[in-house]
Amino acid sequence: MLMSKYDKIKTDISHISQLTKTLAKDDPRRIIHSIKVGFAITLVSLFYYFDPLYQGFGVNAMWAVLTAVVVFEFSVGATLGKGVNRALATIIGGMSGFGAHKLSTLSGNKIVEPFLLGLFVFITAVLMTFMRFFPKMKARFDYGLLVFILTFCLICVSGYRNEEVIDMAHRRISTILIGSSTAVIVCVVIYPVWAGTDLHNLVSTNILTLSLFFQGFGLEYFNTSSEINSDDEYKTSIDAIKNVLNSKNNIDTLLNYAKWEFRHGRFKYGHPWTQYQKIGELARHCACRAEALHGLLYSQVQASNEVKAKFREPCMKISAESGNALNELSIAIKKMNKPSKANPHLQNAKQAAENLNLMLNSNIWKNLNLSDVTPAATVANLLADVVSCTEDIAEAVQELASLAKFKDVKVSPKIEKAKLTNQGSTKRRCVANHVILIETSSPTSSPRVSVPRDPPSLAMAQQNAE
Amino acid sequence: MLMSKYDKIKTDISHISQLTKTLAKDDPRRIIHSIKVGFAITLVSLFYYFDPLYQGFGVNAMWAVLTAVVVFEFSVGATLGKGVNRALATIIGGMSGFGAHKLSTLSGNKIVEPFLLGLFVFITAVLMTFMRFFPKMKARFDYGLLVFILTFCLICVSGYRNEEVIDMAHRRISTILIGSSTAVIVCVVIYPVWAGTDLHNLVSTNILTLSLFFQGFGLEYFNTSSEINSDDEYKTSIDAIKNVLNSKNNIDTLLNYAKWEFRHGRFKYGHPWTQYQKIGELARHCACRAEALHGLLYSQVQASNEVKAKFREPCMKISAESGNALNELSIAIKKMNKPSKANPHLQNAKQAAENLNLMLNSNIWKNLNLSDVTPAATVANLLADVVSCTEDIAEAVQELASLAKFKDVKVSPKIEKAKLTNQGSTKRRCVANHVILIETSSPTSSPRVSVPRDPPSLAMAQQNAE
Repeated sequence: MLMSKYDKIKTDISHISQLTKTLAKDDPRRIIHSIKVGFAITLVSLFYYFDPLYQGFGVNAMWAVLTAVVVFEFSVGATLGKGVNRALATIIGGMSGFGAHKLSTLSGNKIVEPFLLGLFVFITAVLMTFMRFFPKMKARFDYGLLVFILTFCLICVSGYRNEEVIDMAHRRISTILIGSSTAVIVCVVIYPVWAGTDLHNLVSTNILTLSLFFQGFGLEYFNTSSEINSDDEYKTSIDAIKNVLNSKNNIDTLLNYAKWEFRHGRFKYGHPWTQYQKIGELARHCACRAEALHGLLYSQVQASNEVKAKFREPCMKISAESGNALNELSIAIKKMNKPSKANPHLQNAKQAAENLNLMLNSNIWKNLNLSDVTPAATVANLLADVVSCTEDIAEAVQELASLAKFKDVKVSPKIEKAKLTNQGSTKRRCVANHVILIETSSPTSSPRVSVPRDPPSLAMAQQNAE
Repeated sequence: MLMSKYDKIKTDISHISQLTKTLAKDDPRRIIHSIKVGFAITLVSLFYYFDPLYQGFGVNAMWAVLTAVVVFEFSVGATLGKGVNRALATIIGGMSGFGAHKLSTLSGNKIVEPFLLGLFVFITAVLMTFMRFFPKMKARFDYGLLVFILTFCLICVSGYRNEEVIDMAHRRISTILIGSSTAVIVCVVIYPVWAGTDLHNLVSTNILTLSLFFQGFGLEYFNTSSEINSDDEYKTSIDAIKNVLNSKNNIDTLLNYAKWEFRHGRFKYGHPWTQYQKIGELARHCACRAEALHGLLYSQVQASNEVKAKFREPCMKISAESGNALNELSIAIKKMNKPSKANPHLQNAKQAAENLNLMLNSNIWKNLNLSDVTPAATVANLLADVVSCTEDIAEAVQELASLAKFKDVKVSPKIEKAKLTNQGSTKRRCVANHVILIETSSPTSSPRVSVPRDPPSLAMAQQNAE
């Protein structure tokens, strides 16, 4: 009995230490963040320990500690947002509270006064609480509204007891400013975590996930021999796709924080953060297609091998080239380059979709049963839909590149040459060796390399610059 | 100049009042919530106004106001969660802080003491902040950990000044208990908003949204005459589908709150809330198919009318009957009935899928071009996938019904009779009049009416009851 309990505690402890290691390994910034919080709080609590600092504020010094604890968040944007909200709301709330206090003393009646103050508190709480439901307020000033109610009530109510209201409001405001600014400064100065960078990386990673799925899907569906043994690897891939599908909330939150951040790293002031939201939505749209395709992979009704063989070439090309295009787009976002390298792949994918259409129009299907063909035809049709999704994503990334003035990447002369020699041939078949196709499918095999410049997005970029 | 400014303010005000009206109309509970918050805060601030109440706590009474403001949330679950977190964390944090204070005074050295206290504060802040990254802690005790750091630091640090640490800790804990309990009591007693009920309704509504989409999709795709005029209506439908796709975060949050709530309304203690998460995920899975189908609706490549005519009957039946089955499932959840009424529709949908398969195997396609057929075949195949999604949802709802002991609904004798007479005929064609098909498709036309009882889910229900 005692032994089993001891064993249980032992496994519990090993489980927790395992989890701790995983958490720390997955994102080492978590450890740094924890240390930063400890540092900031210890720094603020110096106010209590040392007499010269303590004399100025007295018991009010605890507000500084409280503020530092509450305001310190993981990313700079979140901390700044909360800090600014808290500081501004305290100042405005404190002033309003003082005003309400003055107004109630005008009555000069010690019995009417508390009722008047109670009424002010009630009305303010009701109005501000309702304002928290406004979507725009909720997104940016939810915490501020809460602190406003708080400060207003505290000043208003304690004002009734303490005649030195101004002095109290002043102390409260300055301690909160000290707490907020300590939190913000520690957060920004020591290994800062920028929500904007996280948003940028998340969107890029989401597109990379899609890219990996489509690069692998063709092989998975049309490779009749080794369908089972790569199952595990595939499972991680669909889990990743699910993460992309569920990323909306994460992206929205990061966007919200990123808007609070000032210029940092490669991100200038006025970086078009909302464009990431748009790309994220298109990626989710594309992930839906991926999920539908994944469903067909394990569907009970499958096309015969004969039919699959016929579909293999164009479908694998569409899938792999869409994947390659997405891969290039992901790299372009990550490195902040113009996404010109994605275009050849996109052209190849479109070309393959056209070839597929031509093939469907030919008469090689005459002797086949339609029910045999349908599953593969469905995959083919969904893949064609994926090409248009990829095009949409490419367009949105292009727009981002224009808005954020991403770097131009020079197309090497070799590619330029290939471009010229390929200009004449509009329809080409690729080699059926899919392994090479996926791993190398180089831009040299593209019929046209063009860097489309979107006039409307350029106009928007200029507008933004103003 | 002055006039235009005046106009701008006028439009701004009308815009805000419009938004306020919409917010209040969409969910009148928002107004009630605001008034409740005002009431609770005013109630707590009575401690300040009236001398007998004030004498006991002095300035510490402000902690009660502060707690009431911070703890009061929209739903009972959120308020309870925050209140319990705050109260428990304050008690434990206060006690730990007192312990740390005692420990540091043991040194008896006035110079070593602040350094020791600073070390305690630092270590606690680092450890607790890191603990907030543990997923399970984050879900249920995030706020508690924050308050623990807060209280520990305040007691520990102010303990250095104020020798009456126990007295201070005691006052802080009792005021916070008063604030928390006032918030919780007002939240529960006056028009309570239950997160559990919201979760229940949200999942039911999500399935209803899917149902409406599929009930309409067949008509939309195969009705060649009036494709355009219902465009607006359809747009709302796909927006609703997008809401379903993006509902994960909402469901997770509500689930988290629902777990804090005690027995209320039709929901007993130990209601299987997590099962809603499962149903929600399956609904999102199905919504993905709906989005893919919607993409095909506006795809450039469309099947010819001739082909569409051939696919119309079985596809419209699958779409409509899946929609009907989902509708019945949604109603069953809403009313907390066993979802037996969905089964006939599900059987019909499966039957139609089989018919479709037979049709694909027939030779009516010989003279058609495959590229003409593919778009419609894709729709057909995805719809067949929708049937299996619907089956999954039905199974999960059935499991929920077993776990939560939903009411049995009696199948009317008329249906029982129809069941018997239909038992012999396994394949039947429905009337092609789709309007009737969608609106009435009654359970009497089902080949078998069965109420499957899932042995594993029943076992789980018993396990739960223990």
